[in-house]
Amino acid sequence: MNDEDLHTRISQSFESQGLMRHLGARLVRIAPGEVDIAMPFRDELSQQHGFFHAGGTSSIGDSAGGYAALSLAPRDRTVLTVEFKINLLAPALGETLLARGRVAKAGRTLTVANFKVFCQRDGSETLVAVGQQTLMLIPKRDGLAQD
Amino acid sequence: MNDEDLHTRISQSFESQGLMRHLGARLVRIAPGEVDIAMPFRDELSQQHGFFHAGGTSSIGDSAGGYAALSLAPRDRTVLTVEFKINLLAPALGETLLARGRVAKAGRTLTVANFKVFCQRDGSETLVAVGQQTLMLIPKRDGLAQD
Amino acid sequence: MNDEDLHTRISQSFESQGLMRHLGARLVRIAPGEVDIAMPFRDELSQQHGFFHAGGTSSIGDSAGGYAALSLAPRDRTVLTVEFKINLLAPALGETLLARGRVAKAGRTLTVANFKVFCQRDGSETLVAVGQQTLMLIPKRDGLAQD
Amino acid sequence: MNDEDLHTRISQSFESQGLMRHLGARLVRIAPGEVDIAMPFRDELSQQHGFFHAGGTSSIGDSAGGYAALSLAPRDRTVLTVEFKINLLAPALGETLLARGRVAKAGRTLTVANFKVFCQRDGSETLVAVGQQTLMLIPKRDGLAQD
Repeated sequence: MNDEDLHTRISQSFESQGLMRHLGARLVRIAPGEVDIAMPFRDELSQQHGFFHAGGTSSIGDSAGGYAALSLAPRDRTVLTVEFKINLLAPALGETLLARGRVAKAGRTLTVANFKVFCQRDGSETLVAVGQQTLMLIPKRDGLAQD
Repeated sequence: MNDEDLHTRISQSFESQGLMRHLGARLVRIAPGEVDIAMPFRDELSQQHGFFHAGGTSSIGDSAGGYAALSLAPRDRTVLTVEFKINLLAPALGETLLARGRVAKAGRTLTVANFKVFCQRDGSETLVAVGQQTLMLIPKRDGLAQD
Repeated sequence: MNDEDLHTRISQSFESQGLMRHLGARLVRIAPGEVDIAMPFRDELSQQHGFFHAGGTSSIGDSAGGYAALSLAPRDRTVLTVEFKINLLAPALGETLLARGRVAKAGRTLTVANFKVFCQRDGSETLVAVGQQTLMLIPKRDGLAQD
Repeated sequence: MNDEDLHTRISQSFESQGLMRHLGARLVRIAPGEVDIAMPFRDELSQQHGFFHAGGTSSIGDSAGGYAALSLAPRDRTVLTVEFKINLLAPALGETLLARGRVAKAGRTLTVANFKVFCQRDGSETLVAVGQQTLMLIPKRDGLAQD
């Protein structure tokens, strides 16, 4: 798959996710096995202390890992998250969250990815979460026609 | 803590979370060690196939487990998610997601909770996700004055 | 599968695992979707404080969940652990560890199981670990001829 | 802590673990935040297909991450595994398993570590498992006098 095809594949799927739009998340990097997603802070993303809510952190972490897996999947496959695990390392206080998804092992049926989430504040970056994720490659079909 | 105090404690914290409001989630059950959160479907919560996005599923699962832990914590403590793991078992297609958080082991410093997320559709309920979670009890203080 | 076939299937596989024998673990319950494994204490299973080592706890937890999954798998399939997550809840000090594996959702390709590990001491039982596990059903073949 | 003290601290604890000895595991690298453990194959470590059993893989992975955490902990603290998650990526067939534990974030109360497990065979190395782990630093005391 050339760069343009890869970009189209990932961004078309991403844009069809109502939740990513609702959270104000956007794709900021697409490469084979590597996808980054950024999400600027808004009150709508906060928890009770004014930090980013862990729900948003895990949502973009899961998506970054999932799209990293999709970037390496055959064209006739789509990708589902089987499970993920996330550790929250530090309070996520800042202007923007940045999730970096990376494929650890691409398989025929299962792919394992890692993600890291950083919080950007006043020009510096803090690692606020790390995750490990299992994804399943399934044939496109029926109501699952798009990635 | 009597029932009214417990209800006030949990619901005040919940209502101060911008993300839960943004997702349209609401508390539907509060009891010692048990909290349920419901989230009706909207396009803003979808993934690319029109199902509930796993990000929403994990957000309310994590919150249900976290508030279940808070319901058993001493009054001078608040609760942070250390980590969680979620398995997505089935496509979440339906009118409402319901996350049920339950404390497995309440400790002095760490509490372990489980959560199950069900999808309600046409009057029946499907188990769509199960999770296991570690929470930390910390003193209330500074910018962390509320639960 | 009748009870006798089920018992034979699980116990033949178990007995061919060098590690289970080396740890002194034994099957104590086999039912559809439910397998229990017991492991009596020996110095060879200890960590530095004289408790059961978490490595033994996770070994029999993983095996109990895996055999619970195998108990529901078609005869022409075998089962591999894709991943598991374990929380250690309390020091495992006692005469015997007992791991109880239970299928949460049996699928065609993936099965999700939970396990709990109890430590028996002076006639009482303490929950010392809980786990959540993903297993894959694969065709028997080649060097993987047995379950 | 100087190198010699660090080496003594980790190796004394390791050698007092009955299970590590029983599995034939040994420390092969100790550095601040980094500990490697090797375990040569024996029939006593096998699963039903003659590969290393996942129980052994997770035992040395957990230990490598735990000792990496201990290597950065204050002298008056010891370390307990709160939880870990492991993905098994490939069959572990070979002469030796090598677990590499690395601290991802060292905290005052909780430390997060990652581990990778490689299988060495005929001079090459395959990544067979990756894990993510939460550890708790607790004061040494009572029956927990040693690390």
